[in-house]
Amino acid sequence: LGEFGRIDRFFRPLAAGFPGARDLGDDAAVFAVPDGHELVVTTDALVEGVHFLPDDPPDLVARKALRVNLSDLAAMAAEPLAYTLVTALPPRVPDSWLAAFASGLGADQEEFGIHLMGGDSVSTPGPAMLSITAFGTVARGRALGRGGARPGDAVFVTGTLGDSALGLEVLTRGIRGLGSEAAAFLAERYRLPRPRVRLGARLAGLASAGLDVSDGLVADLGHLCARSGVSAVVDAARLPLSDAARDALALDPALADRPLRGGDDYELVLAVPPAARDGLAEACAAAGVQATEIGRIEAGPAGRVVALDGEGAPIALGAGGWRHF
Amino acid sequence: LGEFGRIDRFFRPLAAGFPGARDLGDDAAVFAVPDGHELVVTTDALVEGVHFLPDDPPDLVARKALRVNLSDLAAMAAEPLAYTLVTALPPRVPDSWLAAFASGLGADQEEFGIHLMGGDSVSTPGPAMLSITAFGTVARGRALGRGGARPGDAVFVTGTLGDSALGLEVLTRGIRGLGSEAAAFLAERYRLPRPRVRLGARLAGLASAGLDVSDGLVADLGHLCARSGVSAVVDAARLPLSDAARDALALDPALADRPLRGGDDYELVLAVPPAARDGLAEACAAAGVQATEIGRIEAGPAGRVVALDGEGAPIALGAGGWRHF
Repeated sequence: LGEFGRIDRFFRPLAAGFPGARDLGDDAAVFAVPDGHELVVTTDALVEGVHFLPDDPPDLVARKALRVNLSDLAAMAAEPLAYTLVTALPPRVPDSWLAAFASGLGADQEEFGIHLMGGDSVSTPGPAMLSITAFGTVARGRALGRGGARPGDAVFVTGTLGDSALGLEVLTRGIRGLGSEAAAFLAERYRLPRPRVRLGARLAGLASAGLDVSDGLVADLGHLCARSGVSAVVDAARLPLSDAARDALALDPALADRPLRGGDDYELVLAVPPAARDGLAEACAAAGVQATEIGRIEAGPAGRVVALDGEGAPIALGAGGWRHF
Repeated sequence: LGEFGRIDRFFRPLAAGFPGARDLGDDAAVFAVPDGHELVVTTDALVEGVHFLPDDPPDLVARKALRVNLSDLAAMAAEPLAYTLVTALPPRVPDSWLAAFASGLGADQEEFGIHLMGGDSVSTPGPAMLSITAFGTVARGRALGRGGARPGDAVFVTGTLGDSALGLEVLTRGIRGLGSEAAAFLAERYRLPRPRVRLGARLAGLASAGLDVSDGLVADLGHLCARSGVSAVVDAARLPLSDAARDALALDPALADRPLRGGDDYELVLAVPPAARDGLAEACAAAGVQATEIGRIEAGPAGRVVALDGEGAPIALGAGGWRHF
C-alpha cells in the first residue's frame, strides 16, 4: 500500500473520533485541555526481540504498546485522552500485519476511551519498533507521583504479581508439567497487560504516591521509596498470586522470585495513608479492581525495600529489577 | 553507566528548566497549557542508516531529530514548549556518544526555547533509532494547517531549496569538482535543518495554509493542494537556490531536479492571500528569514502541481517526493 496508503487504510480510521487529530492530514495535532485540568504525558517504546517476541500476534503487540502507556497514565491518576504512534517497520512486514496491528489498537481505543491523534511511519533495516506517547488529563494539582509516601502509609498492590514474568517463561523455556489453561493465562498476562485505568482515574486524593510495576515490585517500590525519602517493608507471603502463578511456583521453585522481582506486571503499587483506606476500598470496588495490602512505608534510608518471608525473616534481594542496558 | 545512570547524567539536566518534567522522576510529565491556548503535538522518528548516517556526529543527529519536529511546529504556527525523547540504542553505543548527543540537544534547547520533559531509553539489537514528540502552543483556533489555500493565493517558500538533497549527495557519492566550502555548506544543510520557528510563531492570520518541506517541494505542495482542494503552479526559475546549490547544479546537470524534488529541506511552503503579502514581509523581516514567491494557487484538480520552466513550459515531474516504504 505504501506509506500514505497504509496511513489512509489503517491509521486514519483510528483518529476519526478525535477532532484534534485533524484527520491525520496536517503536520501536527491541535487540541485544547479542559479548563482546570493539566495534561499528563508519557512515552514508552517496544522493540521486537526485546519487549515483544517476533511471533507475537500483531494485535496483541499493538495493545501491549498502548497499554504500557495507559498504565503510566493510571499511575499518575490521569484519565486517557489521546496518543501518538511511531511505527518503525522492516520492509518485509506485510500489510496484513499492520491491519491486525491496527485492529488491536481499535479494540483498545474502545475499551479505554482513547484515540490516535498523530504519528510517524518509518522504515527500518532492523527489528520492528513501536513507540507511543500517551496523553491524559487530571484536575490541576491532583496528579499522583512517586514522591509523597510517608511513614505509616500502607503499601497496596493491584491484581496479581509475577504473572507476566512467568508468562515469558512459558513462552520461552516452558514450565514443565504446567496445565495448558494456566500456561495460556500466564502467556496472556505477558502479552496483554491490564492497565488499571479505571482505578487510576479515581486515585487523586487517596494515594500519597504510586507507580506501575514494570521493572519488578522490589525495584519499582524502591523507586517510589527513593523519591519519597522513605523505606518500605513487604510481607512476601501476602503478595497476591494468581492460581496459575501458584501452580507454576509449585512446579518449579527456582521461579519463586518472580512475584517479587519479575517485571512487566503493570499493576499499580500505591502508598496509602491510614485515613484513605476506606476510600481506596470504595474506589477499587467502583473500578472492579482488587487491591491487596502487602506492606508498609517506614522511616529509614531512602529507597530501601526489605521483603520478609512467612517467618518474618528478610529475603535476600540482590540488585533486583530489570534493566534495559 | 546503565539506563538510570545515563538518564541521571545526560537527560535530567535537559529537563531542569521545565517543572512539568518533574525532574524525570515520575511515570509521566504533568503541565498546564496557558489559558486561551491550544496544544500542538507532532512526532518524528529517525532511523540510523535511513534518516541519518552511522558516522554523523551525535550532536548533529540529536539536533536534527529535534529540529525536524520543531519544523512541524513552525508549520502549524506554534511556539515550542517541550518535548519527549525515545532513544533505542544498540548496546555497542558508548556513553561518550550519548554525552555528545545530549550536548547537541542542550544547544538547541537554548536556541529554540524548548525543554526535555520525559521519554524512554531502550536497548535494540538493530540500528539506533530516535523518536521525538514535540509540543507547542498556539492561540486557540489560530493553528495553521494544510487546508485553507485558495485560488489567487501566492505560494512562498522560505530559505533555499535542494540544499539537503545535494548535501546527501556530497556525503554519499560526492559531487566531482565542487569546492570544499560549498560541499561543507550543503552537507551541513543535510545534517542540520534550520526550522523556521521564529517565522512560524508569526504566521497565524497571515498564511492561509502551510507545511514544511520534508518529502520535496512538489510532493509537499501537492499535499497542501490536495487537502485544500486546489492546484498550484510553480515557476521553477524562481526557486531560491543557495550559491553552493548553484555550483553543484552547474557541475552535474543530472542533479537539476533536487530543488523541486529533493527532501529534507525543512523550509516552509506557504499559501498567502494577496492581502497578507505585506504582513508576511514584515513577519519575515522580524524573524530574520527570507521568503520567496515561487508560484500561485489556482482552481483545478485537487493536489495537482505543475512546475514551469524558464520558457513557461511544464516540466515532467513523475511521481515525485520521497517515500519511506
